[in-house]
Amino acid sequence: MFDVFKRPAVRLEVPRLKPRRAPDQALRVNLAELTPELVPYLGQAAYIQLAIFEALARALMLAPSVGAKEALGPASGLALEKHERLVAELRRLVDDPAVVMAPFAPAIDAYAAVVRGVDWYESLTSVYLTAGILDDFFILLAAGLAGDVGPKAARIVDSATGREIIETLLADAIAEDDTLGSRLALWGRRLVGDTLLVARSAIHHSGNVRTDEQRIEPVFTELIAKHSRRMDGLGLTA
Amino acid sequence: MFDVFKRPAVRLEVPRLKPRRAPDQALRVNLAELTPELVPYLGQAAYIQLAIFEALARALMLAPSVGAKEALGPASGLALEKHERLVAELRRLVDDPAVVMAPFAPAIDAYAAVVRGVDWYESLTSVYLTAGILDDFFILLAAGLAGDVGPKAARIVDSATGREIIETLLADAIAEDDTLGSRLALWGRRLVGDTLLVARSAIHHSGNVRTDEQRIEPVFTELIAKHSRRMDGLGLTA
Repeated sequence: MFDVFKRPAVRLEVPRLKPRRAPDQALRVNLAELTPELVPYLGQAAYIQLAIFEALARALMLAPSVGAKEALGPASGLALEKHERLVAELRRLVDDPAVVMAPFAPAIDAYAAVVRGVDWYESLTSVYLTAGILDDFFILLAAGLAGDVGPKAARIVDSATGREIIETLLADAIAEDDTLGSRLALWGRRLVGDTLLVARSAIHHSGNVRTDEQRIEPVFTELIAKHSRRMDGLGLTA
Repeated sequence: MFDVFKRPAVRLEVPRLKPRRAPDQALRVNLAELTPELVPYLGQAAYIQLAIFEALARALMLAPSVGAKEALGPASGLALEKHERLVAELRRLVDDPAVVMAPFAPAIDAYAAVVRGVDWYESLTSVYLTAGILDDFFILLAAGLAGDVGPKAARIVDSATGREIIETLLADAIAEDDTLGSRLALWGRRLVGDTLLVARSAIHHSGNVRTDEQRIEPVFTELIAKHSRRMDGLGLTA
């Protein structure tokens, strides 16, 4: 009866063990020209980590069992910690970090509402996939920042997320329910566009639209490839 | 026009600097007979800290400004940390802490839904006042626990909460809006009954109802006195 919802038996072949360092290096060179100033970078990155924290806390609240709640605690704590470490960097540069973050709040809050999802499964899929894309992007973007703070900010965004547990929680749920897998595969694909718009909003445009797009395109291709690998890890067809 | 909602100019005189140690000692002796076993104590205390974390994260999500969100981050993180430290104590004693917490979840989740509040102000008032009562109670209750874990659990529940900032956020909001003060005063009074029921559910009854009640009564009187002091600190008439 539910055959139509079944995932195809053949998955996309994704090369998991390809060395990541070389292409990332090239992408960083591309992005260097598009890097925003340090203060707005930190403000937007910090507010995004706060939004990731809120999404994880919401997933924790919606969790169907105490065990699942428990599993999401560490990831929530680590997102909050990343937010607070970025705010601490901001506080070295400005008096009131909230003033720097505030201009980014309306767009990110609206985005968070769109990718929120209708239940625990969509909420959990969303935070795993969207935080994955946004972390990848802000790590790449940090490479063009001036001074020591760039590498430091990249290390903060790149630090442990505790989100691996979400893969287990979702893979278990999907294994029990075929229709869930096809619903979440659709949901996972829908998230990409809005998330890349948030990434795009962080870019400092040079004025030459064609050159900018030529630089952005390979970066987004790489973000989507990494996203597809995360989808695949959940057992979802990207 | 709004005179009817105004708080009376004369506040309750609350002795703020009274030494707390002596009465607490007597209350602890009272409670020693009513102390639950160590494992369920830790399970309920840990799940309550998780509920406090969820309430703080929800208040953070509902916050009307980035500055207010920002202010609630540390308190959320500290509640999560208290939860995780209590779970760590539990993990020394049992294989799966979630199994110990699970029986307490339905009642605490139902309680959390009742005290949630309809907006940011009620939500914030609620978490400040209810977490205050529950922390006070679980600190007193820990005194009767066997072994070294009792004092350790008390120290965890008694550790920094970061919730002082809520007093400032609410006092500022109340100072700007008289009707808010009278609404929150009513709300603050309504929270007490349900919260004391949660406290009562943690008590191990001896079988002698009259003796138990004689022991519980002064403890609850003390919890209510401390609650009144917190109400007063917010500028609300208890």
